[in-house]
Order: sequence, then C-alpha cells, then structure tokens
Amino acid sequence: MNRIPFETVHARLAEVLRKLGFSAARADRCARLFAETTRDGVYSHGVNRFPRFIATVHNGSVDPTAEPRVMARAGALERWDGQRGPGNLNAQAAMARAIQLGSDHGIGCIALGNTNHWMRGGSYGWQAAGAGLIGICWTNTMPNLPPWGATEPCIGNNPLVIAVPRPKGPVVLDMAMSQFSYGALESYRKSGKMLPVGGGFDRDGNLTRDPAAIESTQRLLPIGYWKGSGLAVVLDIVAAMLSLGNATHQVAPDPLRETSLSQLFVAINPVALGGEEQMERIADQVVDSLHHCRPAPHGTPVRYPGEQTLRLREENRRLGLHVDSAVWSEILAM
Amino acid sequence: MNRIPFETVHARLAEVLRKLGFSAARADRCARLFAETTRDGVYSHGVNRFPRFIATVHNGSVDPTAEPRVMARAGALERWDGQRGPGNLNAQAAMARAIQLGSDHGIGCIALGNTNHWMRGGSYGWQAAGAGLIGICWTNTMPNLPPWGATEPCIGNNPLVIAVPRPKGPVVLDMAMSQFSYGALESYRKSGKMLPVGGGFDRDGNLTRDPAAIESTQRLLPIGYWKGSGLAVVLDIVAAMLSLGNATHQVAPDPLRETSLSQLFVAINPVALGGEEQMERIADQVVDSLHHCRPAPHGTPVRYPGEQTLRLREENRRLGLHVDSAVWSEILAM
Repeated sequence: MNRIPFETVHARLAEVLRKLGFSAARADRCARLFAETTRDGVYSHGVNRFPRFIATVHNGSVDPTAEPRVMARAGALERWDGQRGPGNLNAQAAMARAIQLGSDHGIGCIALGNTNHWMRGGSYGWQAAGAGLIGICWTNTMPNLPPWGATEPCIGNNPLVIAVPRPKGPVVLDMAMSQFSYGALESYRKSGKMLPVGGGFDRDGNLTRDPAAIESTQRLLPIGYWKGSGLAVVLDIVAAMLSLGNATHQVAPDPLRETSLSQLFVAINPVALGGEEQMERIADQVVDSLHHCRPAPHGTPVRYPGEQTLRLREENRRLGLHVDSAVWSEILAM
Repeated sequence: MNRIPFETVHARLAEVLRKLGFSAARADRCARLFAETTRDGVYSHGVNRFPRFIATVHNGSVDPTAEPRVMARAGALERWDGQRGPGNLNAQAAMARAIQLGSDHGIGCIALGNTNHWMRGGSYGWQAAGAGLIGICWTNTMPNLPPWGATEPCIGNNPLVIAVPRPKGPVVLDMAMSQFSYGALESYRKSGKMLPVGGGFDRDGNLTRDPAAIESTQRLLPIGYWKGSGLAVVLDIVAAMLSLGNATHQVAPDPLRETSLSQLFVAINPVALGGEEQMERIADQVVDSLHHCRPAPHGTPVRYPGEQTLRLREENRRLGLHVDSAVWSEILAM
C-alpha cells in the first residue's frame, strides 16, 4: 500500500477519464468520487476499484458520455433513464435532484433505471446529509446471493444506504444484504483467517466460517437468513418497477458485464418541519446512549453507523490515501 | 386453539372497545385491525394480543379517545402527534394520509410521534398496497435488543415494512431487526425445541440456539450481527428526529408501559409515472425468478415476502380464526 496525496490521486484519475472521452467537468467529478471513497476508508470501492471501472468503459458496459434523462415526472417523484452512463455520476445527479425535490416538497424521490454500478453507496448518503437532508437510497446488483431456501445466486446483495444529517457528524448506514461481500471473503482467505461469524454454506450445506468453502459454493449468507433475503427481494422490485428498469434476474452475472441496474433515491428535508435544535439534540442523545451501553468484554466498541468515517477522512487527508501499489502502477500506465 | 368466525371475533372486540370509551366507528376499525391480523396468520400480533392491549388502555398507556393531530406541514411531508392514542388506529390514519399525499405529490411522508405500539406493522403495508401505492414504514420500540458490541438491550428491534402493490398479490415484507422475537423464543422453549439458527448469546457470550439461554441473558441477536444493529439505530433516529418524538432509549423497557413511540410512513404512487402494465410484469417476473431458483435439498421453499398471506387469509376466513382458548375466554369475560 502506498500513501499518495489526495490531490495527486484525484488529478491522475481525472486525466485518465478525460483520455477516455469524459468531459473535463465530468472527469473531475467522477475522479473525485473515487478518491473521496478511498479518503473515507472504503478501500474496496474507491481507487483500488478504478481499473475495473475503466475495463467496463473499454468493454462498452459504461458509456462515458451518456447523461441521465427524465422519463416521467409526478410532483416530487421522477423516473430517470441513466442511459448506461457512469454509475457514480448518475447516482450523484439523481441524489442531487432528489435533494432539490425534497427541498421543494419536503420529500423527493428519483427512480433511476438503466444505470451502472454506483461504486460506494455511502457517497450519496453523505451527499444528502451534507445538504442537510435525510438520504435513503438503494441499488440492485447482478445475481450474487442465493435467496433463503435456494442454492444458486438468484438475488442481489442490493446495498441500502440511510443517512442522517448531524452537525457533529452524520450518521450514515451503508450495508449490503449479504453478510460478507466476495471481496471480504477473498481478503479473509488471503490472510488465512476464518470469518468472525458464519458467512455462508459449504458443499454439505452446513453454515461455515471458512471463506474458501463459501467462495466455492457461491452460497453466501443473507443477513438474518430469511430476513435479509426478503429485504433484498423487495428493494429489487421497488427499484425496477419505479424505474421500469431491470430486476436482478435480468442482469448479467459477471462483474464486467453488470450493467443496466435500477436504483432509488429519496431525500427528506427535516428543516422544512422546523425544530432544528430539537432534532440535533435527538440525534446526539441516541449517539450518546449507544456509547453508554454496557460493552461486551473483549468485544468491538459500540458505534453508530459511519462513526469511523470522519476520523479516517482526516487521517487519510493528512497522511495521503492508501492505494494498492500494483493498482497505482496500473493507473500511472493508463 | 379455537376456530371462531371472523365476524364473531370482530363484533366481540368492538363491543369490548366501546365499553372502554372508543367511539363506535373507532371501535369497529380497531377491532377489525386485530381480527384481520389473526385472519392473515400473524397470530402473535392479532387477537391473542388483545388482552395485553386492553391492559395498556386500563393503565393509561393508551388513551382510547385521543386522535392524532398535525404539528407541521411542508408539502408532501407532515409531522404528527399521536397523542398516545391507540397505536393501530394512529398508524392506519398516518398511512392513509401518506397515501393521500403520495397520490397528490407522487410521494408522501408522515412522521408520527407520541404514539403507541402499532401491533402488526404489515397492516399498513397491506393498506398502501391495497390502494395501489408502495408503502414503506417503520416504528421504534422499547429497548429490547443489545446493539452490536454490547450486552444490554439499548436499542429496539424496530420493525420495518415495505409493501409493493401487485394484482396477483402484493409483496409485503414485515421484519423486526432481532433474529427472533421474545414471543418466538418463548414458543420454541415451550415446545422443547432449539432455534433453527443462532438467535442470541448465552451467559458465556457464545452464540446459541437455546431459547431459554437467550431469554435469561436478554442478549438477542440483531439480524446480520453489526448490520441489523446499525439499521435499527438509523431507523430510530429518523423516526424520532422527524416526529420530534422519543427515541428508543427514552421508552420504558416494559411491554405494558411501552408508549410514546416514533414512526415513519412513506407512500409512493407508481401509477403517477405511468407504465402500469410494465410494472406489473416486472413484479411478476421477479416472483417467477424466485420460484425457479434451484431449491436447497430438504430446505424451505423459496418464497417472496407475504406469499403465504393470501392463502392463510382465505383459509381462516373460510374455517374461522385461530384464537387461543384461554384468550378467547378472557375476551368473552371482558
């Protein structure tokens, strides 16, 4: 792992994107989203993932010049076609519009179909919270998770994001519906470790903590067994229906061909209802109550979702971004 | 268990409620929600729970005559005070208003504070789907679940409901954030069975399938470990902030004194965007894709959320409602 200044990373990614046909402004925004993801400590979905993103531009899954367009409007609700543009730019534009609708109507909603992988979902939660709104968004994915009762991956792990603005630091949940991602399984396997809890099934159908056994069966575990499976299904249906986009079963089960996804973005404007000081106190008191809850011996500290982000952001800003050395060499050669 | 005709149950519950000061119309609606919950097969939150509900009217937790009132409006978003009225009537009124706002603005949202236990959350999902809208709602609860990393119940199991209208039968997810409820633990213990999967921690801090061991530590497991814990926290903050109501840590940890809860109701009107036939096909195809996913040997069939409901509804309508004999005697004596 190298430590590289944020500005260096951002400038280099933007340069690569411009060469691929991104306009200067869009290259800047797209590169910034990748760099900010790494800056915030989400290494799996930031700069380390940039080469795979570039491969999807090269193979035509992502159209670098496509911009989303509105298909239908109804007050605070809109249906958009992402036209297979870059997933993070499309998602950022959709949340920006949801924020505008939320500011005008109290709540706003964009259903975005025909889009691409949004990389780090939390980005759009931080975006809403940064504007002072509550952000809720989710995406479907390619089939990568067996529904409860099945042995093959027929549903997506469909990440869900819920973000709450808070002056002392937003509360931002960003979670997929599988207990572990394939990236996490790989990382545990490579370091020779068992998963901390059961993460899927082995070839005999037994729940296991062995990452390699789960990689070989592709039987990852949904969070909460039948519960996360059901949640993944409804998130998929809602996003696909409202956007008239693809549902998971229609998406190619290949990370390089995973395209035409469906997403939903909701923004709620708390300030419109008044009571800002009270709302701030309510959020702070929940955070305090968690920090005062009796910890388990030898366990991880009790934290609110997103609690680590501001510390990691400051540290990575100060010391430079962690980027895998091989990835950085690859990016420099692009 | 007795089998009692729906109309008999409904009429008797309404009669009891009228004696307690409910108006005729409100007694009818409140009784119907209880009877419909049992009719739909959710026995834990229907008629079998009526005596406990009545106890909360007697002890003042629930004010039978209180109606919700609007505190603030901003377009498609409203903040309501439930004034400690009956939780199911308040929730039904809030979702009805969210449906109206959704019909007017494409999407509508009600934050309801100072309300009571809504009994079966799915009722309000079915309500939205029955009106042709997508319904999303959640409630906080008293502290009944340890957050990840803690040993005492500081967060709620905060049920989340997402319902999708579908002519062949709505898709309705209704799930709490604990892997099992206390009611489920009790039922497994009484029948001498182990839980099908780990449901909490024993006194040595080990994950266990023994319901009695979990009841004694009160260390129930959040779905997906840290993930369901985080989701419960953000649902609590959003509902409490927007309603200016209590967060879980402020609610009495006693089922008979669990009052002044906070809830959120969102309704999205798909028809406003057009494409009804396509949307129906999208939902049907997701359901079909689940039914065609390769099942695990000896496992439960792959089902969509709410799939069993219409069959149970028809059967219970035809044969009569299952009501615990002791509970029915108690209700007849009220």
